[in-house]
Amino acid sequence: MLVRKVCVVITARPSYARIRSLLHAINEHNDLELQLVVAASALLDRYGSADRVIEDEGFNIDRRVYMIVEGENCVTSAKSTGLGVTELATVFDNLKPDFVVTIADRFETMATAIAASYMHIPLVHVQGGEVTGSIDEKVRHAITKLADIHCVSGDQAAQRVIKMGENPQQVYVTGCPSIDLAMQACETQQQDVNILTQQLGGVGANVDLNEPYIIVMQHPVTTEYMQARNHVEETLAAIHTCQIPTLWFWPNVDAGSDGTSKGIRAFRENNPSNNIHFVKNLPPESFIQLLNRSQCIVGNSSVGIRESAFIGTPSVNIGSRQNGRDRGINVIDVTYHRDDINTALKNQIKHGKYKPDTLYGNGQAGNLIAEVIAKASTNTEKTLLY
Amino acid sequence: MLVRKVCVVITARPSYARIRSLLHAINEHNDLELQLVVAASALLDRYGSADRVIEDEGFNIDRRVYMIVEGENCVTSAKSTGLGVTELATVFDNLKPDFVVTIADRFETMATAIAASYMHIPLVHVQGGEVTGSIDEKVRHAITKLADIHCVSGDQAAQRVIKMGENPQQVYVTGCPSIDLAMQACETQQQDVNILTQQLGGVGANVDLNEPYIIVMQHPVTTEYMQARNHVEETLAAIHTCQIPTLWFWPNVDAGSDGTSKGIRAFRENNPSNNIHFVKNLPPESFIQLLNRSQCIVGNSSVGIRESAFIGTPSVNIGSRQNGRDRGINVIDVTYHRDDINTALKNQIKHGKYKPDTLYGNGQAGNLIAEVIAKASTNTEKTLLY
Amino acid sequence: MLVRKVCVVITARPSYARIRSLLHAINEHNDLELQLVVAASALLDRYGSADRVIEDEGFNIDRRVYMIVEGENCVTSAKSTGLGVTELATVFDNLKPDFVVTIADRFETMATAIAASYMHIPLVHVQGGEVTGSIDEKVRHAITKLADIHCVSGDQAAQRVIKMGENPQQVYVTGCPSIDLAMQACETQQQDVNILTQQLGGVGANVDLNEPYIIVMQHPVTTEYMQARNHVEETLAAIHTCQIPTLWFWPNVDAGSDGTSKGIRAFRENNPSNNIHFVKNLPPESFIQLLNRSQCIVGNSSVGIRESAFIGTPSVNIGSRQNGRDRGINVIDVTYHRDDINTALKNQIKHGKYKPDTLYGNGQAGNLIAEVIAKASTNTEKTLLY
Amino acid sequence: MLVRKVCVVITARPSYARIRSLLHAINEHNDLELQLVVAASALLDRYGSADRVIEDEGFNIDRRVYMIVEGENCVTSAKSTGLGVTELATVFDNLKPDFVVTIADRFETMATAIAASYMHIPLVHVQGGEVTGSIDEKVRHAITKLADIHCVSGDQAAQRVIKMGENPQQVYVTGCPSIDLAMQACETQQQDVNILTQQLGGVGANVDLNEPYIIVMQHPVTTEYMQARNHVEETLAAIHTCQIPTLWFWPNVDAGSDGTSKGIRAFRENNPSNNIHFVKNLPPESFIQLLNRSQCIVGNSSVGIRESAFIGTPSVNIGSRQNGRDRGINVIDVTYHRDDINTALKNQIKHGKYKPDTLYGNGQAGNLIAEVIAKASTNTEKTLLY
Repeated sequence: MLVRKVCVVITARPSYARIRSLLHAINEHNDLELQLVVAASALLDRYGSADRVIEDEGFNIDRRVYMIVEGENCVTSAKSTGLGVTELATVFDNLKPDFVVTIADRFETMATAIAASYMHIPLVHVQGGEVTGSIDEKVRHAITKLADIHCVSGDQAAQRVIKMGENPQQVYVTGCPSIDLAMQACETQQQDVNILTQQLGGVGANVDLNEPYIIVMQHPVTTEYMQARNHVEETLAAIHTCQIPTLWFWPNVDAGSDGTSKGIRAFRENNPSNNIHFVKNLPPESFIQLLNRSQCIVGNSSVGIRESAFIGTPSVNIGSRQNGRDRGINVIDVTYHRDDINTALKNQIKHGKYKPDTLYGNGQAGNLIAEVIAKASTNTEKTLLY
Repeated sequence: MLVRKVCVVITARPSYARIRSLLHAINEHNDLELQLVVAASALLDRYGSADRVIEDEGFNIDRRVYMIVEGENCVTSAKSTGLGVTELATVFDNLKPDFVVTIADRFETMATAIAASYMHIPLVHVQGGEVTGSIDEKVRHAITKLADIHCVSGDQAAQRVIKMGENPQQVYVTGCPSIDLAMQACETQQQDVNILTQQLGGVGANVDLNEPYIIVMQHPVTTEYMQARNHVEETLAAIHTCQIPTLWFWPNVDAGSDGTSKGIRAFRENNPSNNIHFVKNLPPESFIQLLNRSQCIVGNSSVGIRESAFIGTPSVNIGSRQNGRDRGINVIDVTYHRDDINTALKNQIKHGKYKPDTLYGNGQAGNLIAEVIAKASTNTEKTLLY
Repeated sequence: MLVRKVCVVITARPSYARIRSLLHAINEHNDLELQLVVAASALLDRYGSADRVIEDEGFNIDRRVYMIVEGENCVTSAKSTGLGVTELATVFDNLKPDFVVTIADRFETMATAIAASYMHIPLVHVQGGEVTGSIDEKVRHAITKLADIHCVSGDQAAQRVIKMGENPQQVYVTGCPSIDLAMQACETQQQDVNILTQQLGGVGANVDLNEPYIIVMQHPVTTEYMQARNHVEETLAAIHTCQIPTLWFWPNVDAGSDGTSKGIRAFRENNPSNNIHFVKNLPPESFIQLLNRSQCIVGNSSVGIRESAFIGTPSVNIGSRQNGRDRGINVIDVTYHRDDINTALKNQIKHGKYKPDTLYGNGQAGNLIAEVIAKASTNTEKTLLY
Repeated sequence: MLVRKVCVVITARPSYARIRSLLHAINEHNDLELQLVVAASALLDRYGSADRVIEDEGFNIDRRVYMIVEGENCVTSAKSTGLGVTELATVFDNLKPDFVVTIADRFETMATAIAASYMHIPLVHVQGGEVTGSIDEKVRHAITKLADIHCVSGDQAAQRVIKMGENPQQVYVTGCPSIDLAMQACETQQQDVNILTQQLGGVGANVDLNEPYIIVMQHPVTTEYMQARNHVEETLAAIHTCQIPTLWFWPNVDAGSDGTSKGIRAFRENNPSNNIHFVKNLPPESFIQLLNRSQCIVGNSSVGIRESAFIGTPSVNIGSRQNGRDRGINVIDVTYHRDDINTALKNQIKHGKYKPDTLYGNGQAGNLIAEVIAKASTNTEKTLLY
């Protein structure tokens, strides 16, 4: 059999962390060859220059593509998608991959999906079939309708993809590769606390990682981006009140992150002494180990639902961003209100660690997906099954 | 109630013909205001400069957007989509429509859908839920997952859209607006034959419209674009053999139309005297009247399935392009082979006109869609209903 | 005579301030009609949302165009230019201006110039013929070669434009419209100090505007962008040493401004108590009045050369960015070294205000340029005059 | 010394022919490495698929970039330029060339120049300093102001580049590489007439290459594109009248070529028997040999001025497209009028071959330019020398 060229498009630091085990699995598979495209916020300094991390970890980057139109609003989300399609078409035309892999539901994911579909390159979609609300959900299901091969996180997702009319033979429950990372990070030797502290960098209060601390990750919600600032202010107030040392991770590029950023900056001006340390970036294993050691994760990141389920970290999930996503018992859902957040946080800290749950995968997703691609049909014709 | 601004994006001559009754219905509706964007091949001379037709018929064009990247292959289909998204985002940002209407399943339709979705403008999709195979089908269903309001042609389409997880309350069986045009053209006074002949223009054999003739419309199939030339050659041979005077309409811009064009040009060089008149364009009413008068329509255009069902014109449908599309009894399906085409053509001519069938609408779609938009929710949040 | 539609493209807050008198002059001219396009960083919150300022001052914005590709490096400067050309072509195609006005030498200026040139719309270039070094100089002279009508700031600029082979009859010494603003701001009633302080906003040390203070504006130099951080650190050190209360204005979007931003952020972290107040934005008149009241302006902004000459404010000009630009006696040029900056700053404060100099115009540029456009030939054919 | 990576961007079949000797010279130079980008009409079937020719001749294509926006008018010329800048920036960012070479004055040349300039890659401009009128002239001189190294065709061009303010040490009289091709084609063994005839392909009258014949190449003039059809009709009439067998080469992609195409198609419909054979493409050596054997070249291609001077072929140059271009005694200039063309053509055929003239080079340009690049400074800073 000819080696199959598999092009993976990485467009953000968290996407890289999530998909890394697949990159290794492709590299190690005899029948597959990795083509790596790094694009969008993964190239940007203010989102942690994932491209440098990727190269430092030994991957060769085949193409770099800047594609984010500045503005962080709805108009520029659309324009970035358009620019991404145009540029990725040229990339695929030159790299000539046999398969293209796209992850989840971001606008760059959509750009990748459209370029591959029109070019009749079989499209592998990872993390389809999940329910979350917001524009992400529309985009995720639209990509399902464009994709040829579906590698989903769990049984419920598989059922949803099939109900949407996809061929069940093209739907594979592989688990989510982000769980692979979580498993590896928990199993390997734990990073020294001094090194973790150094890696954190950032600004704000000093946090002693040997003492109890919590983690916050709060992204703006694209359909509520006018409220981004208000939402972040509520969370800041709740965290400020509870007084537990806190590591706050900077948000993704997305419509509204500007409101979030402004809320954080104003908070820091007005509360020069507080309990929050603001961080931009961290090697993914270190992040998982930090999550594993933390008392609780607060915010609206999927990490609080997915990786935290597997690890057992208590999670306070704020607002609508993760609505509809399947969740384990480690999650307490709350409104945006500071009091709600505060109460849930206290309860979670009191409860402590939960039992691990594999509803998002058992840690072998990377290998399973690679195996799927090695054997998959290259047909790109499909039709509704009803 | 405030007047609702409804932006309709027209990207091809046939799309305009199809949607014209909706444009009139919006213009005449007290609660709606039309914003008209003309883009892509609708601006191009070699596809009949639909923009001039649109202005001649009294519509005001709010924006013109060139967005087709030259090449007529898979790469440029993708790139044109990307360019379209980027430009239409700017257009919508400036026009600030309350609703965006997109039609069917072309790459420009996708571009419109993506720009509107990311900008949280409620998206009305006309002609969703149909089954055809090829990239068009992927695109059509992906647009269904992005759209907020579905105006479909018939009951089967409605059922499919709902099965894909859409809210039944947002799915409206309005019929297809192309049937409105067919109905009007058949009901109004018939165009004089001399004027029709003049309007045809074009090159090749003279065709006397008072005598029996047939119509051919054959588009390249995007997933089979390498065979475009071979396919058109088979049809040319079948038509050449049958010797009936023929009006052959030039294909759409699409991956592969270059192969189609070359096949036609070579045929003309090699058969200087033949029975075919090649035509680029025609006012839509005149086209319907021609179709109504013709013995049969041959090729793979949806006109042979949709409008012809309503009119009762016999249709020989070639190859895979219309696979899965609901059809009436007026259609005989054949392979690309010249002999198959020839036999079916003879049988259809022998049979003559069929009884009208309203499976694609009863001729009121434009008014019904306008009414839907006037009353629809402006919510753009949605989630899978399973 | 038909009214001439004059399209002015504003792409940055400082460009708006510079050209505002021309916008008023066009609006007030009987034979001219203003078409206003606001684009690029003029739409971005983090560069002061010039679009809101423009609307607040009563101008109607005909089109908004996002066109900056995020990254703030050489690659994205090029890509932003490309995106700008593509989008502005659509804008001009729809607005159908009789003249397009472009200002100075930024990448958006280039984008405007290319779109207008290829579309055979007479191009009016304001501020050509100046000498500065860096990529700006290449771009400025390239625009001169594309432009049809040259409205230059002074006699030397006029001579240079003519030497490059332009027709002397198309070269007009109108002065720079930025001087119009400076004149008006100095002549009208002075803003109350409390209001000025409020308008400043920003973060850092409190500065009492009734006491002596200085102004800093330092942009990254595109050809030295790797050194942007080092350069800003030297200036920060010099200002920190001199201890005079300082208003520091945030830099333009440009390759390297990220290094500048980082240098400033690190300085603030390391020197929590210092003499600098950091500011993002200010109504242009207020800025000029602040400049008029200040002891000195330090940095590499052209404001230190142009407006300050007219006003008589002492200026310390750092590094290569303004190399070759004609200057009055109010300027002391220094290297990037903190000691040089410090010494020059002391000498300038000791000297105090200079006598006004009109080498960049006498305050009537807006009216003069409007008059030029009202009478100019619409021919876009030209050829080298040697 | 490190090997210098030299990126050459080829965007059209004639540009390739012109620059091929340079490609060979770079490949053979020990200190240089060729990076070949093929883009724009060089990828398009209807302009002769130069990419296939390039590969057939043994060159490796590093990147393919589709960048022409369909429409063939002023708007799409601008948009294609913008798309080209955006895409070429990504290409240069990935290929990381030490030098970029751009040829002449087309919109893709401009796109290449802008991308390289903003990215601070030293830009080598071939064929600067020439005078022709039309948008090409504006673009050519604008590129001169962006370029770092000028390789010009002759002494007059060199003088003009220096007068525009360029550093004389960066201006090299290398001759035009198109003359290299002409010299080689004339010196090598002449192609067999039967093979030439086969290579021609095309449609229309049979032309016996052993008998006297003439060549026509007529491009639309971008600033006169509304008249494109009229201009081509005059030439067609003149050629039709003179009755000499004629090889007519299909025009470039450019604003207005649609009018040209239509004129030609209408002529063929109306004059089914005529003396003209229409051709799309030919290997460049074969073209030169055909030119060498022909009685005269008619039209407005620079071939009639440049290569024909070196070969001595009589030339009838029509209209304004070559205005201002330095020319030898082999050229007779005429208006667009059919009678003028006819008279000049008769006189040229009577005169026969002229003596060769090296005003555009002596056939060594490729080697000379490669040598210039191997030794050139990599500085990209420059300033007007007055």
